[in-house]
Amino acid sequence: MSIATPDVATSPAFKVADISLAESGRHQIRLAENEMPGLMSLREEFGPSQPLAGARIAGSLHMTVQTAVLIETLVALGAQVRWASCNIFSTQDEAAAAIAVGPTGTPAEPAGVPVFAWKGETLDEYWWCTDRIFDWSAEASAQGADFTGPNLILDDGGDATLLVHKGREFELAGAVPETTDADSHEYSVILGLLRRSLATSTDRWTTVAAELQGVTEETTTGVHRLYELARNGELLFPAINVNDSVTKSKFDNKYGIRHSLPDGLNRATDVLIGGKVAFVVGYGDVGKGAAEALRGQGARVIVSEVDPICALQAAMDGYQVARLESVVSEVDIFVTGTGNLGVIRPEHMLEMKHLAIVANVGHFDNEIDMTGLEKIEGVEKVEIKPQVHEWRLPTGRSILVLSEGRLMNLGNATGHPSFVMSNSFTNQVLAQIELWVSNDNYPIGVYVLPKHLDEKVARLHLDALGVELTELSPEQAAYIGVSVEGPYKVDHYRY
Amino acid sequence: MSIATPDVATSPAFKVADISLAESGRHQIRLAENEMPGLMSLREEFGPSQPLAGARIAGSLHMTVQTAVLIETLVALGAQVRWASCNIFSTQDEAAAAIAVGPTGTPAEPAGVPVFAWKGETLDEYWWCTDRIFDWSAEASAQGADFTGPNLILDDGGDATLLVHKGREFELAGAVPETTDADSHEYSVILGLLRRSLATSTDRWTTVAAELQGVTEETTTGVHRLYELARNGELLFPAINVNDSVTKSKFDNKYGIRHSLPDGLNRATDVLIGGKVAFVVGYGDVGKGAAEALRGQGARVIVSEVDPICALQAAMDGYQVARLESVVSEVDIFVTGTGNLGVIRPEHMLEMKHLAIVANVGHFDNEIDMTGLEKIEGVEKVEIKPQVHEWRLPTGRSILVLSEGRLMNLGNATGHPSFVMSNSFTNQVLAQIELWVSNDNYPIGVYVLPKHLDEKVARLHLDALGVELTELSPEQAAYIGVSVEGPYKVDHYRY
Amino acid sequence: MSIATPDVATSPAFKVADISLAESGRHQIRLAENEMPGLMSLREEFGPSQPLAGARIAGSLHMTVQTAVLIETLVALGAQVRWASCNIFSTQDEAAAAIAVGPTGTPAEPAGVPVFAWKGETLDEYWWCTDRIFDWSAEASAQGADFTGPNLILDDGGDATLLVHKGREFELAGAVPETTDADSHEYSVILGLLRRSLATSTDRWTTVAAELQGVTEETTTGVHRLYELARNGELLFPAINVNDSVTKSKFDNKYGIRHSLPDGLNRATDVLIGGKVAFVVGYGDVGKGAAEALRGQGARVIVSEVDPICALQAAMDGYQVARLESVVSEVDIFVTGTGNLGVIRPEHMLEMKHLAIVANVGHFDNEIDMTGLEKIEGVEKVEIKPQVHEWRLPTGRSILVLSEGRLMNLGNATGHPSFVMSNSFTNQVLAQIELWVSNDNYPIGVYVLPKHLDEKVARLHLDALGVELTELSPEQAAYIGVSVEGPYKVDHYRY
Amino acid sequence: MSIATPDVATSPAFKVADISLAESGRHQIRLAENEMPGLMSLREEFGPSQPLAGARIAGSLHMTVQTAVLIETLVALGAQVRWASCNIFSTQDEAAAAIAVGPTGTPAEPAGVPVFAWKGETLDEYWWCTDRIFDWSAEASAQGADFTGPNLILDDGGDATLLVHKGREFELAGAVPETTDADSHEYSVILGLLRRSLATSTDRWTTVAAELQGVTEETTTGVHRLYELARNGELLFPAINVNDSVTKSKFDNKYGIRHSLPDGLNRATDVLIGGKVAFVVGYGDVGKGAAEALRGQGARVIVSEVDPICALQAAMDGYQVARLESVVSEVDIFVTGTGNLGVIRPEHMLEMKHLAIVANVGHFDNEIDMTGLEKIEGVEKVEIKPQVHEWRLPTGRSILVLSEGRLMNLGNATGHPSFVMSNSFTNQVLAQIELWVSNDNYPIGVYVLPKHLDEKVARLHLDALGVELTELSPEQAAYIGVSVEGPYKVDHYRY
Repeated sequence: MSIATPDVATSPAFKVADISLAESGRHQIRLAENEMPGLMSLREEFGPSQPLAGARIAGSLHMTVQTAVLIETLVALGAQVRWASCNIFSTQDEAAAAIAVGPTGTPAEPAGVPVFAWKGETLDEYWWCTDRIFDWSAEASAQGADFTGPNLILDDGGDATLLVHKGREFELAGAVPETTDADSHEYSVILGLLRRSLATSTDRWTTVAAELQGVTEETTTGVHRLYELARNGELLFPAINVNDSVTKSKFDNKYGIRHSLPDGLNRATDVLIGGKVAFVVGYGDVGKGAAEALRGQGARVIVSEVDPICALQAAMDGYQVARLESVVSEVDIFVTGTGNLGVIRPEHMLEMKHLAIVANVGHFDNEIDMTGLEKIEGVEKVEIKPQVHEWRLPTGRSILVLSEGRLMNLGNATGHPSFVMSNSFTNQVLAQIELWVSNDNYPIGVYVLPKHLDEKVARLHLDALGVELTELSPEQAAYIGVSVEGPYKVDHYRY
Repeated sequence: MSIATPDVATSPAFKVADISLAESGRHQIRLAENEMPGLMSLREEFGPSQPLAGARIAGSLHMTVQTAVLIETLVALGAQVRWASCNIFSTQDEAAAAIAVGPTGTPAEPAGVPVFAWKGETLDEYWWCTDRIFDWSAEASAQGADFTGPNLILDDGGDATLLVHKGREFELAGAVPETTDADSHEYSVILGLLRRSLATSTDRWTTVAAELQGVTEETTTGVHRLYELARNGELLFPAINVNDSVTKSKFDNKYGIRHSLPDGLNRATDVLIGGKVAFVVGYGDVGKGAAEALRGQGARVIVSEVDPICALQAAMDGYQVARLESVVSEVDIFVTGTGNLGVIRPEHMLEMKHLAIVANVGHFDNEIDMTGLEKIEGVEKVEIKPQVHEWRLPTGRSILVLSEGRLMNLGNATGHPSFVMSNSFTNQVLAQIELWVSNDNYPIGVYVLPKHLDEKVARLHLDALGVELTELSPEQAAYIGVSVEGPYKVDHYRY
Repeated sequence: MSIATPDVATSPAFKVADISLAESGRHQIRLAENEMPGLMSLREEFGPSQPLAGARIAGSLHMTVQTAVLIETLVALGAQVRWASCNIFSTQDEAAAAIAVGPTGTPAEPAGVPVFAWKGETLDEYWWCTDRIFDWSAEASAQGADFTGPNLILDDGGDATLLVHKGREFELAGAVPETTDADSHEYSVILGLLRRSLATSTDRWTTVAAELQGVTEETTTGVHRLYELARNGELLFPAINVNDSVTKSKFDNKYGIRHSLPDGLNRATDVLIGGKVAFVVGYGDVGKGAAEALRGQGARVIVSEVDPICALQAAMDGYQVARLESVVSEVDIFVTGTGNLGVIRPEHMLEMKHLAIVANVGHFDNEIDMTGLEKIEGVEKVEIKPQVHEWRLPTGRSILVLSEGRLMNLGNATGHPSFVMSNSFTNQVLAQIELWVSNDNYPIGVYVLPKHLDEKVARLHLDALGVELTELSPEQAAYIGVSVEGPYKVDHYRY
Repeated sequence: MSIATPDVATSPAFKVADISLAESGRHQIRLAENEMPGLMSLREEFGPSQPLAGARIAGSLHMTVQTAVLIETLVALGAQVRWASCNIFSTQDEAAAAIAVGPTGTPAEPAGVPVFAWKGETLDEYWWCTDRIFDWSAEASAQGADFTGPNLILDDGGDATLLVHKGREFELAGAVPETTDADSHEYSVILGLLRRSLATSTDRWTTVAAELQGVTEETTTGVHRLYELARNGELLFPAINVNDSVTKSKFDNKYGIRHSLPDGLNRATDVLIGGKVAFVVGYGDVGKGAAEALRGQGARVIVSEVDPICALQAAMDGYQVARLESVVSEVDIFVTGTGNLGVIRPEHMLEMKHLAIVANVGHFDNEIDMTGLEKIEGVEKVEIKPQVHEWRLPTGRSILVLSEGRLMNLGNATGHPSFVMSNSFTNQVLAQIELWVSNDNYPIGVYVLPKHLDEKVARLHLDALGVELTELSPEQAAYIGVSVEGPYKVDHYRY
């Protein structure tokens, strides 16, 4: 049963590319479970007590095999879940199908979680999917209950959170602003969706917002938005910043990128990395992982940085640190990992070597100035294969842009591997439990998980790697002023 | 136009999986050309003089995009070519299609090179394809010429060379031996083919052998067979051992595997390599590349070796060196790179961790004892996806075997990247030219390329990497007793 | 003119091993200045404005060549200084001599800073030296001024700070406690010194404490003591925790140890590191630097950790993580870097390989249980050369203990190299300026330097390494919500 | 008892700097024995059978602690020995003293081996020492035997071999040529010595040459000379090229330099290597080890090469490959490892950064053009400490030259560590045994050791590193056509 791209006016129980992929997805989920010891341990520890009973979670996070294990863990802990992807390209169709079918269902009689995601959504479809995870009318009706939407959001990038905040804002204002030329295409899609919503209901998002007990947010970008909302007094519910758990930021960003950057480069281009000159824009955790991976494959890595501390780290790690302008014409592979905009711009692209590869593992597709690229006079875009495009420049040279400038580790590979995501997602689950079980401890604001939970996440991943942990003696613990069980470090410890 | 798997009795002009893939293949060939500066330089240097005019080359080598660039280089230098793959799984169908179509042809009117290869051949099909590259009747007839087969072989693994030698041997004997239980399935297929050949012609292979001026051989295994033939006085024509050019063995084996091993692991399993325990069997060039790649991804690498010198090298490079038996139950990823047989055996597999990955980058599928695995009582084989199989063992644990125990960098990835193959293939082309142009210099025997040609291959790849070569002054050259232009090292220099 | 070890009752203008070493020290200072661009830049920036005019700094920090550049920088910014080392073995005698002589003095007519330090002090001598930096009577008398001691402390390890706090405490109590068997030898020395002081003056330390405007502290251990004093309400003056500047902790600990650990191992033992099994206790910044250095030399590194997050980091970086007990008999080189006590104990030492090397780069000599080692029945200590001792164990095996279990990078090498110390010391100077110029901003408590100063320290070290820093455009700065000039990161950023 | 530098006319039983250093040397020898398992195993295996009984070995090789273990191994196998160093700076005085005293002697009653070596010889003294190892009159007289000199040479660099060849040549000619302006200072010293010899005896060297059964040579340079002599038909006795054993060239050159280069840099300068730009001239085994060591310390390494194969290797290993001219002004540390002359010349030095470090680990002091440096007008040489000189250039900048341009790992550190030398020296001993026991197998010519002995050397070093060697099954051995016991590789295998 193949499901066509949706008519955005209708609302089926779920929407995936091809439900028949479920069996393949189920195999992959089973293999992934072996690589996600953190989540599997939580199922074992918390399955009996069902701490998420009553929780209705709206999830907006790349609909991959790993996310499938997360979703099934949330369900195993008692939660109800609806899910959308947070990126138009990142869905693994077989994972979405398997989640829709569920472990006990069949493609003919799906018994899984409502999921709205497929690889290659349009922006209209994407925001329609995001809208769907806030419509819990079917569940309310089935349970004879009186609720409209979810009571928790599990977010990645903040799109789900944004939709609620904007929806409520425009309902309070009584109108959705006109779209202007300054608005991005994506923002005009959001405005359109909310305009249609307002035409149908004047308080849908206000009600949704009121029911929400909080959000747990996965990424730098989403966290940045949350702190801004909080600073402006606009945040509507408490938020846990999962991104800044050590076991998330240091692991997902650094070790995840170390794995998935070369994976994406290889799948996209099959170009030898060894011997090449690679340029990594930004030496935060993402850049550190990228540089290590490229060096590990024998590339010569040049780094650029704006922060003198990170620049000094790069130098001390043996990398050349240069401005992009200084070396652009010698570079074979460009990788961006800054979370900022316009770090590679048309003036750079015009100076690049023929068939230089341009890849983003940092942030949105504005990190590489794709709009600027499109506007170069005489530029021509040739699809080599999906997510790999040759842009023929008026100079006679071409460049290869991966995943349309979006996150190539998702678009050209399969995202971070399961083990990394197990770290991130174990944080997510613990954060969801915190917000659900101990909501009173979290007045509206943005929080990080307490260090003992961060250490717990790490601890749950050691056995799988054969790590033997040493135990402090009581005397040693006393000597450094900690408890034997931890936490072991002051809050500002940098790892 | 999709071509079904062949009826092995017929002989079309070419046979590929799907001729419509040619356009995609052509794009990839164009990109690969940018990564194969050695071959492109040869086209520039030798295109005008056509040194291979008159040469009829039978190629048996993985029919990948890179091989397509090799084939088109041979053609650009004047040769006629017929081609088969040398592995049942290694063909990239779009490359085969593009070669069949040719740069100037169209799928409807192919104008390329006769190619017989598709991904996933049966053994019967495989040997039929190999047979096809020796049948030059169509060319002879078209050219009004009087030849039967090729005058040069370009071989990888020695299957094409084997077929000629065995075919002639049985023709001289007047009979093909009976197949016995001791024969492998593959050998019985060869015997069958030659039996059918002998039924049709009593001197086909004898004639083919007589027309051959030599073979250039790509791999350790093929070279090993050639030296054996030469030692036994059975070699029928001169052979150039391309494998032992420094720019082949050190680059293809070490740097190629460094690239394609993690690529294959990632595409096959998406399992995080970082933090895992990896075991590399063998620390020759292949093992060195494998170990470096795995360490570069953050794995802890354990190595096994039989040669005390290589074992000491591994220790000096910081790896634990242990017998497989000593650590088998701690290992997450097993990689074989020895060129020997049975280096991972059932008794090891039964002790492995659940879902341990077993991958071969060394040699045939007997390097991992696949036959032994199949014979374990109660074993069950589940296909996760093509080339990735879970073997459920009677212990209750499973292992994941990649590419059925065959070369996983070919089966699960796309083989060595273009730049590496450019080194190997530039050696191949120079070797073909040597045998064709200077055949008198090569009485029957096995040769390596002279060092100045090996250095030339390297030299042709420097510009693309931005390498500045220093030039000796005449005084310096005299001081170390070399010429300014090289060669720079004694023959036994180890690099 | 060679000065004998001091009669601890007298108080000369300075006390060093051999004033004739001054010329050699001056050469080394000149070379070190080239490697300490941070300090040299501060001289250039602040020399004219003399921000430390009026400051009287008591310094207690390893009296090395690098410290000499620090001292002369403080003087160049207007401060008066008295100096002692903070470790009995760490003084470089030629640096002490050069500082005593001063840039413009001669051995015959010293014109430098009063310094009390020589390599190989006894504990009595050590604490006498520390006492000397608090006696500013000569300066007061020369300047016709009415002060007793310093107004700032620059401390490393907290000994100078301890002496003031204990001295004042006992003066308030009117008596120094009796020495008991539970007291360490060192503490009994301190009690003896303060007992003699109290016999002479009942308010010397009370006055000293009152004059002090603050302390800047260099190390983890010292900082730990300060936070404890602050927590208990016993801290007498504000303190700046220099240790936790990123440019200190991440650079000094990680990159400093990466350099000086192998240096110390080599000078002490000349033993090949490559191929050996090294065990690093602790994977904080020090352990990370140690492990990287050992791996960089080709050792196989095993790590132990108590903190699951750091343990997971070690695994992800490719190291085996094991308890010491599990592998002790396979290890060639033991390195401790925890800041805790008793991490290598007699029961471990008795299991070690013959001539295993035991070295501490973490903390005091209790990190390796030296007292326990001495108490092993039948143990015999043989001096191989200064700071290198063979301990013959009753098992018939020996172990080599470096620097008597104290910091071997100081005892067996020359401490961190100048460039690393330039980072630390530039933080120190900026912290001293903060406490002196902006003292009102610092009520009693423990502070870290503001991030913009931390970034400034990094910035001052980039040019020397040829690092090109990229500049944010105003649009980019706005996009990530920072100013173009920085600071660029939130306070909890981990680098 | 301190022995003054010798009056070159007298011939004592031995000549060392200070015999009282013997005890310290004996301690170091004992520790070194633990690191030289190859030599100790040979003592165990061959001690009983005394294969070197009757051998009289003249050794010319750096008189270090490791060489002391070699000498005592030769003696343990039955040889008589006389020894000189092969470098004016490389003697460790305590090792020389311990060898003179011997394991059973005392400083007052030395009972060791005649040794003529001290740190810091003049060239006159150096060649006098070399002369002494050929004068076996004392031994002959003591043994009532009729011989003049040694019957074997153990050489490093070929100076001992040169002296015999030149001595005999001039005796045959009846005259020593006049010294000319074109002769180096060193050659004029040699001519002087031989002139004095010829004045005393017309056939001393002819006799010495006739008695010699062969030489085993340690280094590239010496081997190069031997092949030249052989090519010209001038070689007087068989020679074994120990340098090209894999366990010598790959271990000593690569792993030895990896260890001793940073050791020498640190002892000489204490400059942080991390973050610096290092330039390695030459990417042979020495350069490979140097580059790896520098990268392992966090330096950014740039390599230069003349051989395109080695250049390509450097690129594939991730290093920038550039001409010295292109980057000279950005480099902090220069390292030469080519074995050629004039690879760093005055025109480069004048462009270097202030206080750039210039170090040679390759070859003679002409590798860096020291003569050219001295001739720069206005240059000034300042000794920072022994073997570390600041050369003040007319540009106002200085450079730091280590060990006067000679091998800095010997001059500034203590040479290769024991474990590395154990590999080299185990080859030496096996080669001496070959020449002594199987002399008939070696007609005049230059040989490498057979591969099974090379493998034996490796095998003898595995246990000490905890390496477990895997054993081939007979089936596996047959499959790859080797014997279970080895040798395992073809002769041209490159490792």
